[in-house]
Amino acid sequence: MTTKETDKPIRVALLGCGVVGTQVARLIAAQATDLTARVGAPVELVGIAVRRLSAPRDPSVPVELFTTDAEGLVTREDVDVVVEVIGGIEPARTLILAALGAGASVVTANKALLAEDGATLFAAAEAADRDLYYEAAVAGAIPILRPLRESLAGDKVTRVLGIVNGTTNFILDKMDTSGAGFTEALEEAQALGYAEADPTADVEGFDAAAKAAILASLAFHTRVTAADVYREGIAEVTASDVASARAMGCVVKLLAICALEEGPDGTAVSARVHPAMIPTSHPLASVRGAYNAVFVESEAAGQLMFYGPGAGGAPTASAVLGDLVTVARNRLSEVRGAGESAYADLPILAMGSTQTRYHVQIDVDDKAGVLAAVALAFAEHDVSIQTVRQEGRGDDAQLVVVSHTASDADLAACVEAIRRMAFVRDVSSVMRVEGEQE
Amino acid sequence: MTTKETDKPIRVALLGCGVVGTQVARLIAAQATDLTARVGAPVELVGIAVRRLSAPRDPSVPVELFTTDAEGLVTREDVDVVVEVIGGIEPARTLILAALGAGASVVTANKALLAEDGATLFAAAEAADRDLYYEAAVAGAIPILRPLRESLAGDKVTRVLGIVNGTTNFILDKMDTSGAGFTEALEEAQALGYAEADPTADVEGFDAAAKAAILASLAFHTRVTAADVYREGIAEVTASDVASARAMGCVVKLLAICALEEGPDGTAVSARVHPAMIPTSHPLASVRGAYNAVFVESEAAGQLMFYGPGAGGAPTASAVLGDLVTVARNRLSEVRGAGESAYADLPILAMGSTQTRYHVQIDVDDKAGVLAAVALAFAEHDVSIQTVRQEGRGDDAQLVVVSHTASDADLAACVEAIRRMAFVRDVSSVMRVEGEQE
Repeated sequence: MTTKETDKPIRVALLGCGVVGTQVARLIAAQATDLTARVGAPVELVGIAVRRLSAPRDPSVPVELFTTDAEGLVTREDVDVVVEVIGGIEPARTLILAALGAGASVVTANKALLAEDGATLFAAAEAADRDLYYEAAVAGAIPILRPLRESLAGDKVTRVLGIVNGTTNFILDKMDTSGAGFTEALEEAQALGYAEADPTADVEGFDAAAKAAILASLAFHTRVTAADVYREGIAEVTASDVASARAMGCVVKLLAICALEEGPDGTAVSARVHPAMIPTSHPLASVRGAYNAVFVESEAAGQLMFYGPGAGGAPTASAVLGDLVTVARNRLSEVRGAGESAYADLPILAMGSTQTRYHVQIDVDDKAGVLAAVALAFAEHDVSIQTVRQEGRGDDAQLVVVSHTASDADLAACVEAIRRMAFVRDVSSVMRVEGEQE
Repeated sequence: MTTKETDKPIRVALLGCGVVGTQVARLIAAQATDLTARVGAPVELVGIAVRRLSAPRDPSVPVELFTTDAEGLVTREDVDVVVEVIGGIEPARTLILAALGAGASVVTANKALLAEDGATLFAAAEAADRDLYYEAAVAGAIPILRPLRESLAGDKVTRVLGIVNGTTNFILDKMDTSGAGFTEALEEAQALGYAEADPTADVEGFDAAAKAAILASLAFHTRVTAADVYREGIAEVTASDVASARAMGCVVKLLAICALEEGPDGTAVSARVHPAMIPTSHPLASVRGAYNAVFVESEAAGQLMFYGPGAGGAPTASAVLGDLVTVARNRLSEVRGAGESAYADLPILAMGSTQTRYHVQIDVDDKAGVLAAVALAFAEHDVSIQTVRQEGRGDDAQLVVVSHTASDADLAACVEAIRRMAFVRDVSSVMRVEGEQE
């Protein structure tokens, strides 16, 4: 029942045959009959670019399609769609640009490249009048980019809150459920294959920041790069932070937060990645282990949430194949889908101007007047206090303060001032609080 | 940055100006600048068909566009897109067919019509080479149809479990949190405007069954009508059922369940709506109040969930506007999106052949051998028992049995046999159990 049907296959070149590429190749074969019906033409894999022909492969991989000449493959005249799952900036960028230049449409899962230099890729797709689709770049199998780009195209998205990195979510979840410290939880994640030997990209928030840039660009129809995203990782999160969160009915999550905010020069985009406490009643709080979820607020639709596996070969391949079907259908109809939508062209709000809330735990000398002095310091920095709790006595005396919303700069300055007070032994925990109505 | 841009507006006719129509008209005006940028052309509302010109209206509604001549409006030569939010079978069907026949694309929120006679509408859209989009027909603002139709087009969906009726979810949630009975909870829902004066369509599961038919058709690329969907409402759910669910770590939800199952004649579609117990750990269990959520299982992507407001004027209008942008873009590019995909042409599995699990609560005489006799009855009906619990003594003696998966017919026959046993005073609760791994 599709508009156009043909026996002439849509010919696909695959770049990369690692965990995701293997599953893409497998699905193209396993789903052949369905793909033909859904696209309106057979989908044929015609070549797979790999770095080493001799690396061990899953027996299902059609090794006879292997080539080490990626550039030659993407510029083959008979290739309709190039699927890029190599990752990283180069050679992925050069190959994608070459593919578009040669007239192929492109499906990619490359968040790092899109977040660093999406503008170059979108311009090349525009110039070539070809599609560039990338659902798999954010939150694995979870359909989030298509909903933002299409389903919410008639609405005004105001905020996107996401758990978009499974490794850090696994670690924080482990710390929450077992009381483990960061190092211990990281080691367990590594042993189980949820974290890499060099966990920097995940743990320091680089991966989440790339995804935040992509989400913010789509949600607000503007251009946000990874460099625009404020970033803090989870390496400094302590077992005491997690316990403290729990005591106030919260859990600690690494959040990617993109929002429209009123800044000093009008509406601007705030994009940031950092650990934050969210109430256990918030839908994101129950996202466990290596799962991802993205929470979207828009003016008309209200609050939506999208949940699912955020990584893994088969889930990511599912997202790639969904794009492949759309792109292949577009090829048959000789059209292309929506390109980059960046007309809103909004400024990026500096982190200091972003409105946040802080949870601050202060180890203090146990004497009269301390609470009053701390409260005064908050007031002097234009930060309103929501709650303050005194805990412990003597050497264990603590003040736990949760602020109302204020600018991040005022909050940070307030914490610094408190840190210098004579009766303050230590500011033992500072963390932002999100996801709560005031 | 869109492919085509023009000053010539996309002209929209709106059928219906109730709760949803008012919001559609409002959003078209409020989002005018953004719509122009996202579509590539201005979107202009040119007429609104209403039954009575004099009915009271929101002041934002452009009453100068009102007409009572709906047929004349949809066949106007200058109308590009008709948005139908009247609901019901007639005159909606006649008007949609007339609109398509006159060359307009159609966006509709009409679940009842699509579930009863979608085939006629799809065939008309196909013949006219025009779009028929209907994201708003299922689960309000939640983008679920586009993900099923496009994002998962390269995957094999095996199961869809949804809470797709906010009224019944509000009632069941109220029964769970307050211990209220069905009647009391329904009255509260009516007082708060969550249930209509005649609650039949919601409470008896007709609304959910229509949505199940639409979900099953899209998920499995086949044709399922409302008449194919097995349906039980929630009017028989008692406070005791809810308490019983709670005792076994479950909550009661009205679920729409669509699955691929192996039936006597090969793969078939099972589509059903009934109350069921699901474990509190299941992502659907925490869907509260009038919210909706749809849980999707597919071979490659694994488990996905989509969550948000399932009804209401503004959320439903958001979904309508998302479709409107896509359809308008397609008009500009002179293409249409994917039509009906029903190539799999699967049979419908009879409810009796569907694999389910039962929770059965049996009031019994308190004497030796009762448990053994009940266990034997299950065995004789080819139903394996997962757990059996004896509760109370004397006049309060009860057996609570949870079965493993068996055919619904065997389970029902087993319950009937038990009901007739001499020592059984009553089978006080029978409910299906879903969402749990065995």
